[in-house]
Parts: sequence; structure tokens; C-alpha cells
Amino acid sequence: MRATLIYGAHDVRSEEIPDARIQSPTDAVIRILRSCICGSDLHRYNAMPATVVGVSIGHECLGIVEEIGSDVTGLGRGDLVVSPFSYSDGECDFCLEGLTSSCRHGGFYGHGRDGASGMQAEAARIPLADTTLVKLGVAEDSALLSGLLTLADVLPTGHHAAVVARVGPRTSVTVIGDGAVGLCAVIAAKRLGAERIILMGRHDDRLELGRDFGATDLVPERGDEGVKRVRELTRGDGTHAVLECVGHLDAYEQALGVVRAGGIIGRVGVPQYEVGPIGINTMFMRNITLSGGPAPVRAYIDELLPEILDGSLLAGKVFDLSLPLESAPEGYRAMANRRALKVMLTP
Amino acid sequence: MRATLIYGAHDVRSEEIPDARIQSPTDAVIRILRSCICGSDLHRYNAMPATVVGVSIGHECLGIVEEIGSDVTGLGRGDLVVSPFSYSDGECDFCLEGLTSSCRHGGFYGHGRDGASGMQAEAARIPLADTTLVKLGVAEDSALLSGLLTLADVLPTGHHAAVVARVGPRTSVTVIGDGAVGLCAVIAAKRLGAERIILMGRHDDRLELGRDFGATDLVPERGDEGVKRVRELTRGDGTHAVLECVGHLDAYEQALGVVRAGGIIGRVGVPQYEVGPIGINTMFMRNITLSGGPAPVRAYIDELLPEILDGSLLAGKVFDLSLPLESAPEGYRAMANRRALKVMLTP
Repeated sequence: MRATLIYGAHDVRSEEIPDARIQSPTDAVIRILRSCICGSDLHRYNAMPATVVGVSIGHECLGIVEEIGSDVTGLGRGDLVVSPFSYSDGECDFCLEGLTSSCRHGGFYGHGRDGASGMQAEAARIPLADTTLVKLGVAEDSALLSGLLTLADVLPTGHHAAVVARVGPRTSVTVIGDGAVGLCAVIAAKRLGAERIILMGRHDDRLELGRDFGATDLVPERGDEGVKRVRELTRGDGTHAVLECVGHLDAYEQALGVVRAGGIIGRVGVPQYEVGPIGINTMFMRNITLSGGPAPVRAYIDELLPEILDGSLLAGKVFDLSLPLESAPEGYRAMANRRALKVMLTP
Repeated sequence: MRATLIYGAHDVRSEEIPDARIQSPTDAVIRILRSCICGSDLHRYNAMPATVVGVSIGHECLGIVEEIGSDVTGLGRGDLVVSPFSYSDGECDFCLEGLTSSCRHGGFYGHGRDGASGMQAEAARIPLADTTLVKLGVAEDSALLSGLLTLADVLPTGHHAAVVARVGPRTSVTVIGDGAVGLCAVIAAKRLGAERIILMGRHDDRLELGRDFGATDLVPERGDEGVKRVRELTRGDGTHAVLECVGHLDAYEQALGVVRAGGIIGRVGVPQYEVGPIGINTMFMRNITLSGGPAPVRAYIDELLPEILDGSLLAGKVFDLSLPLESAPEGYRAMANRRALKVMLTP
């Protein structure tokens, strides 16, 4: 089958690899209808050391169940399903607590771990299929597919940032980053009732999409200038919640700069740094909280899916470029040089 | 009046300074009955650069109101009161939200800031007295004074660690540090219903006091050995909540090592470091939350005071050495070399 492999920084290739196949009785194999490229894939695209053997990549997809293992009971051939970016058993203590991304028997796609392959491919093996995949109940030609694809990662990830930062009515929010996750964080903050949503980003068109999604203030300035601007907008205080959707150290530092005393930084951008400021003046004296991590996507889908199906939640607008699967390398280039916000791949 | 001044590392002196006096209509002056030395004073005692002019020190006391400013209406001469380690106006947005330690018109004692003097003295000026001081309703010779003195800092600080780490029934807890704040954190965790409380510390007598306060497991090992031991006690997982009551980087690293995925580090030890590990493997992938800061003491006193008054909360046991005020330098030495857990100073 056709799949996307990464060999190192700026070296993504579309190649033929062995077909995905059932390996365990709890597996399913799905034929992928839509996959996409994530901001976190870009971190690897920009920095991964070169390898001789390509590594499969991609962790977002929806598709059609083609084959199921002998223990799979809740799915059948032909079901149109979405997969979260991690698989989970739905019954361990972490899953029962809603932290499916820490499932005791789970794992992540697209990193060659645990034999789970990447999703930027024609097909994928899904471990623990019954408790991982979610049936969508739409047809293969549904106009909702792009919106439903955001359930695999970016929408629940933006939602996670808002949830851990306890966004609600009367909360002021700053979203850092105008990528797909940042824009979904705007959607999530609005949906949870935030009255003030300040979006920080560098791209006029993305900021405007953020305004459509509910941002009340747009801040194109960065670094100290950006911090100053947000503070001006909030009588010097900063906001109760800051949703850090980038992952670079300067974004975290910006978050510290714009968070109000007693406030929470909900960090979902995968950190590209090991240490950062957490000392007395930056964080402690003002009782700042830092939270976040990989979203427990499976736990959030039930809440978000109905609003995509009824058309009220338009997260699918984050896709601004659609390419055939074999053009994935072009998709990476387009996202890396900011020509595209988020690239969808189709068969 | 007699007061304690710090001139630099290992240089604390007891000296005569001008009497505390009313400077603003909202001030009160109290005659101090009991003050004490804090672990955070020790950080300064160990590391403060030398100065020519001594700086007043101490931020915990209870005493008798001697004089009030013309705008003070809720207090009168002779009232026996406790003061939180910070003063606050009780009416700004932060105070109304319960974050009195970030009061817009407030400040901290014992750092020479805003004219508020140190509490290791015969008397102190208390700004914003009406909304800062709490009347205790006991007599000057009450046996409860040592317990009531813990309301100034260590008990609400331990409580704060537990509150921000969302300790409750079914929560497992690790407390790092067997100083007075760590022991009060054990009290707080027990009081909030934690079923498992693991106390990490190096002093057998303090650990035993921790057991009296409710610790279920005592771990004298430190560093990697200590982390390994806590993980053994928790089937490899660590605990939901970790209350970091030390403030050194190795204590924070230990906290990361013993916190369960999805768990919260409630940090109340004043950090003696500016940067620390917050990256993908130490924190992010497991959805660890870091919270905490200076406790909003004033906001917690109403909840904790009744249990000290009725004798059910025995936090006063943390005091194991009582010295006359002029012996404060000896008290610092005793705490610095761990001969004393917490030193009380009396007139």
C-alpha cells in the first residue's frame, strides 16, 4: 500500500510498504478516506535526525472498516469511523478517569511504536479497535468529512487546552498560535462560554478565521510587543487562561507574560524544549498553574461529535489545502513554509 | 523596640530599632506575643548577599492590638489577633476570588517592602488592618497560642498545596519535605480526606510526627532512591497529588518522579531556582500539572481556625523550640543545622 515515510528533517517520501493487516484479535484494519498533516509532524519534519530506514508518520485519519479481528464485536465492515491519535482500552483506571492518552495498554500512532503504523497512508491497523474507533454514521461522500477529521486531533486538542485551563463563562482567554490547534482552541473557548478571547498569531488570514470562530481581539505582535499588547487589552493583568498551542519556548514564555495572577496555562503545543522558567518571579509569586499534555481525544469525542454532525461546529474550515496522498511531501513543504494552514490528504 | 534584622547569609542580629507606629489611617500596631522562624527565612539566611543596613525579617505572628488608625472600625485595643504573612484589602477582585496573596493593594511582611516591617520583633505595624487581622477570641495565656500561630503561614501554606493539587477522598498523596510546612501539608491532606499519604523526609523524629498527623507511609530515602521507593508503594504509578514543601530544584525533580500521570504537583516551597524541567518526557506526555505559590492565607483562616480552637487540629506540635525574642540568632542557627524543626520566639 501507499504510505508516507519520514527519513529525517525535510525528507518525507511517499512509498509502497507492506499492507496493513490484522495482528491481534482486537485489531481492525481501516481503508483511509481522509488523513492530514499536524503541526507536531512539522516539529519532526524540521528537526528529525536522518535515518536509513523510513519511519511511518501521521496520526489523524478517518476511514472505512475493512477487516476486524476475531475479538472485535462493536464494529463491522463498511463502518465509517474516526480514530483518535492514540488508541486505548477504555477500561483501565486512566481510561475510566478520562485520561485515555495515558491508557495502560494504549499507544500513539505514527511513531513506529508498538507496531502501530502511521495514518498518512492508504490503510492502517488500529489496535484495541472496539474502544478506540468511533462510528460516525455518515456516508463516504458526506460534506462533513473534513469537520469530522478534526476529531482525530486538532479539535479535541484545542478543547483539552481550554478544559485544563478551566475556561468557562466569565473567563478571559489568550490563545497563542494561529495554527489549526490554536484556531480550534478559539472554537473550544467560545463553546465553553469565554467572554473574551484574544488570539495571538502572525498570519492575517488565519487571524481572520479565528475571528470567525469567536476571537474578540487579534494580536499580530510577538514576543515582548505581543505581551505588552495583551496587557494593554486587559488593564495590565493578562487573562485567566492562556492556551499555548505552539510548543516552542518563546510561546511558553509569552504565555507566562500574558497570564493573570492565579491563572492557568493550558499547554497543548508539544514542547520542543526540556527546561523552562518556573521560578519565583515568572510563575510562583503569582500562583500560575501550568497544565496540559496530549489530549485524551477518545474521551472528548462523544461531547464534540454531535455539534459537528449538526453543523454548528465548523472546525473543518482549518483545512485550506487538499492533496492526493502521494503528494504528502508537497503538503509538508506547504505547511512548513506557511503556504498552507493545514493539509488534508485524500486517496 | 527590639527587632530581628538580617545583614546577609548567616548574619542575623537582634537590635533596637524605632518603635512601630501608625502611618496610615487603616493601620494597626500590635504588640507581638508569639512570632516564629520560617523555612523561607532560612533560604535568605543561607544565601542573602551581605548588606550594610540590616533588613527586618519575619512574617508570622500573633499579638495584641495596641493602637488603631482612624479608619479602623473592626478592631479595638486589647484584641488578640493573628496576621497572615501578607496583608490585603479584602475587596479587590483578587481578594474576592480568594487569592488574597495577590491583593491589588496588599504586600508581604519582612522584606522591607511597602514599609511593612518584620514580625520577629516586639511590635509590628499592620497595613489594611481591618481586612488583614483575624480576632482569635482567646486570652493571652491560652494554651492554644502555638497552634493559632500556625495560622499565620505554615498551616494555610500546607493547606494551599493540598487545595491546588485537588486532594480529596480517593486521592493518593506524596508530601515532599518534613519541615513544618510539609507536616502541615500532611495534616491538610488528611483533613481533606486523602486515603494514602506518603511523607518523604530525612529526619526520623519529624517523620514520626508526620505519622501522628496522618501519614500512612514514611520514605526516608532521597533522590532516585526515594522516587523508586514511592513508585514501589504505588504499583509503579506514583500518586495523584504531590505536595512540594521544600523549594529546592531536587525536590521539584523528585516531585516529577513520583507524580502519577494526570496528577498535580502543588508547590509551596519557595523555588530557589529559575528554570526547571517542564519538557515532553518529564511533564507533558503524562499530562502533569504544576500549580501553587504563596498561600492566600487570609482566605483560608476562616476554614481552619475553628478546628484549632476546638483542639482537633494539632498543628502547634511543629514548634519544638521556644526562645526569647532576643535569641533569634540562636533560633536561626538551630533551624539551619536541623537541631530544631520550627522555632517560636516569645517576648
